[in-house]
Amino acid sequence: MLSYELDQSRTEPLYLQIYQYIRKDIESGRIQAGEKLPSKRAFSVQLGVSISTVENAYHQLETEGYIHAVQKKGWFAENIIPTPKEENLPEKQEFFQEKFSEEPEQVLFPFSVWAKMMRETLACDQSKLLTKVPCEGAYALRFAIAEHLKNFRNIHVQPEQIIIGAGTEYLYMLIHLLLGNAVFGVEEPGYVKIQDIYQLSGLQCVRIPMEHDGIDLQALQNSKIEIMHITPSHHFPTGAVTSVGKRYALLGWASEKHSRYIIEDDYDSEFRLSGKPIPSLFSLDVTDKVIYMNTFSKSLTPTIRISYMILPLPLLNQFHEKLSHYSCTVSNFEQYALSRFITEGYFEKHIHRMRKYYKSRRDELFQKMKQNPLFRNAEISGENAGLHCLVKFQTSLSDEALLNEIRKAGFRSSALCEYYQEKPAEPLSILLFFY
Amino acid sequence: MLSYELDQSRTEPLYLQIYQYIRKDIESGRIQAGEKLPSKRAFSVQLGVSISTVENAYHQLETEGYIHAVQKKGWFAENIIPTPKEENLPEKQEFFQEKFSEEPEQVLFPFSVWAKMMRETLACDQSKLLTKVPCEGAYALRFAIAEHLKNFRNIHVQPEQIIIGAGTEYLYMLIHLLLGNAVFGVEEPGYVKIQDIYQLSGLQCVRIPMEHDGIDLQALQNSKIEIMHITPSHHFPTGAVTSVGKRYALLGWASEKHSRYIIEDDYDSEFRLSGKPIPSLFSLDVTDKVIYMNTFSKSLTPTIRISYMILPLPLLNQFHEKLSHYSCTVSNFEQYALSRFITEGYFEKHIHRMRKYYKSRRDELFQKMKQNPLFRNAEISGENAGLHCLVKFQTSLSDEALLNEIRKAGFRSSALCEYYQEKPAEPLSILLFFY
Repeated sequence: MLSYELDQSRTEPLYLQIYQYIRKDIESGRIQAGEKLPSKRAFSVQLGVSISTVENAYHQLETEGYIHAVQKKGWFAENIIPTPKEENLPEKQEFFQEKFSEEPEQVLFPFSVWAKMMRETLACDQSKLLTKVPCEGAYALRFAIAEHLKNFRNIHVQPEQIIIGAGTEYLYMLIHLLLGNAVFGVEEPGYVKIQDIYQLSGLQCVRIPMEHDGIDLQALQNSKIEIMHITPSHHFPTGAVTSVGKRYALLGWASEKHSRYIIEDDYDSEFRLSGKPIPSLFSLDVTDKVIYMNTFSKSLTPTIRISYMILPLPLLNQFHEKLSHYSCTVSNFEQYALSRFITEGYFEKHIHRMRKYYKSRRDELFQKMKQNPLFRNAEISGENAGLHCLVKFQTSLSDEALLNEIRKAGFRSSALCEYYQEKPAEPLSILLFFY
Repeated sequence: MLSYELDQSRTEPLYLQIYQYIRKDIESGRIQAGEKLPSKRAFSVQLGVSISTVENAYHQLETEGYIHAVQKKGWFAENIIPTPKEENLPEKQEFFQEKFSEEPEQVLFPFSVWAKMMRETLACDQSKLLTKVPCEGAYALRFAIAEHLKNFRNIHVQPEQIIIGAGTEYLYMLIHLLLGNAVFGVEEPGYVKIQDIYQLSGLQCVRIPMEHDGIDLQALQNSKIEIMHITPSHHFPTGAVTSVGKRYALLGWASEKHSRYIIEDDYDSEFRLSGKPIPSLFSLDVTDKVIYMNTFSKSLTPTIRISYMILPLPLLNQFHEKLSHYSCTVSNFEQYALSRFITEGYFEKHIHRMRKYYKSRRDELFQKMKQNPLFRNAEISGENAGLHCLVKFQTSLSDEALLNEIRKAGFRSSALCEYYQEKPAEPLSILLFFY
């Protein structure tokens, strides 16, 4: 049986230590694909920890695709070198577009703190406020983001690699300018808007079907895609987490050709409601092939337009050559206000508060579901990963009719099939619920 | 040891007060480069504050580059090289691009009024601040701009026709998305940056030579240009005003084909120092062929990124169809603050003050020219139109050598030939002087 030495004196929780040991052993091959892990009970006795500690570690490993559970048999190490799976291409159907997925609860915006930041900025930074910053953005903000990423996302980058822009849509435009007319890949299902934006820019756009553990690698390999846009930590809308095996395979794919890159859209990583955050693909990458993107418009309010991307160093040089004469699209006032907000710890506090709020909203929602006969035999998934969960229903209704029933019962919901460009022919019977 | 008096009654946090004192002392030289700062512990005892207060102050100073830490030694003042006032002297025999043409004098920015607008906005518009505005921007700001244009530029438009964006460069991108891959025309000479931006977007770009009264119409007719980008009210850099005859001819040209449009770049119409403002091309147009553009980055400060364009109605419909799912790139905070600023009459006051200031700068400049023998027989033109004038010299020097002479004599200047994509073979002997 596996035996690890846990260190009670370390600040890291015990479940994380267990998680790290097992993860390392799977990656190194010490634990082989298909190998059975100790039962939770036996393992907890052996390590001298509670069952729930082991449970938390297993759960994190499962979420990240290192292990999987087989009912009544136990836990098994995953094959982290992935084998391509069968395609399941959906077909056409009509529906409504992403209605609720974009608005964080306005009620949570930390108005008085933000006002304080603005006032302090106006009072203290006058000369900086009128001094034009480089195209990449104000150094103070980029520094604050780099610190934040180091402390809370385990991403280690130089502030120089961070590019600030007025929204992710604008950053997509910059990426287009930077990389030229490459073939872009997007996830199917996914944010329909992303594909719209690329296509409107005249870019060729190819959809790659999602599987339970990330995109279909075979389809990617068979395509002419050069830039693959993915949401590996929490796929929208299915909630899938890209498995470790697929992560490495994706990095391998990108490294095969000079022109290939991966855009890692980490849009809601802050909102994992329980468990450790999923490590970013960017932090795994040693080949300089990942462009990382995130936004404050999601975590603060969509009416503040500040997003950022991290460029790998070779692209950074290209960026300076090609785009340095562009002006940064975010005003200095907001850049310096936000940098204060982060540096003084308010951003982290805000995220914490939002998480708590969404957790309670989620719990209320689940309570409401329990009491409603429509949800009998329904199966919830993805409930910890972000601001929505998926529910699969046992029903013969069409998705549209199902959605109507559910909405009539007072739920905020949309149908999974809406997020497919090519609508599935058969009802999926899966709805999204927003907290 | 440093000694500062902190004021507990001020609303500003203590760490900010410490930060400001030290910063001022470093800037003034009271604390010299390389000088060691008190240890956090000793300083906190002396000032009667907590260690973390000192820590926060030091951290802010470090972030902004005023001090740095040396491990196990403590904190040291950074070498603040004062920004040279006459940074216009080139190091090499090399021309710098548009250095002076873009920065309105920072000294004129109406800081206290702007701060007041921000405070009022934060206090009064809370729910509006968190409500997402359409892609085109906040209605209040578009309404304020429409009123301003009516009163001061004799342009009559509906607020609905006005599109707000984070800088003109971003608006060019929107125009590209709207009109697709058309052939764009730019003025030669002109803003080199505009051509760069179009070309980087993969657009074909054709240069049309300037004549004394606007672009060469014959060259335009003979080209494949569909979208012609011009500065008819005050050509940059020659100062030429497009004659009425050419204006009608341009509108005629545009009306000949469905795909043709004119972009009227009205970048500095506010700064006509004397005489009546030149009517806009947009206000002449009854054929819905002119897209009007202007920016507040020029009249307020380049660090506030707010520009706008006016679309003719047919294009407005296309805009809604194609681009309505984009987010406006300017944050609500600044849109509402600016709309107050305009509506309450401060913008007009500010422009008036700037005009007065530039007039006096210009008169000083002319005085200085008069006293300098280099300007004997030199001919000034375009002195009323904007923030620079042109001077034609009688000289056998190359433009580069001439510019060097002039700069050595203490003038802020650049050579006209720098604004040509295809550099003229013969010296033009014309320099630009910025007020």
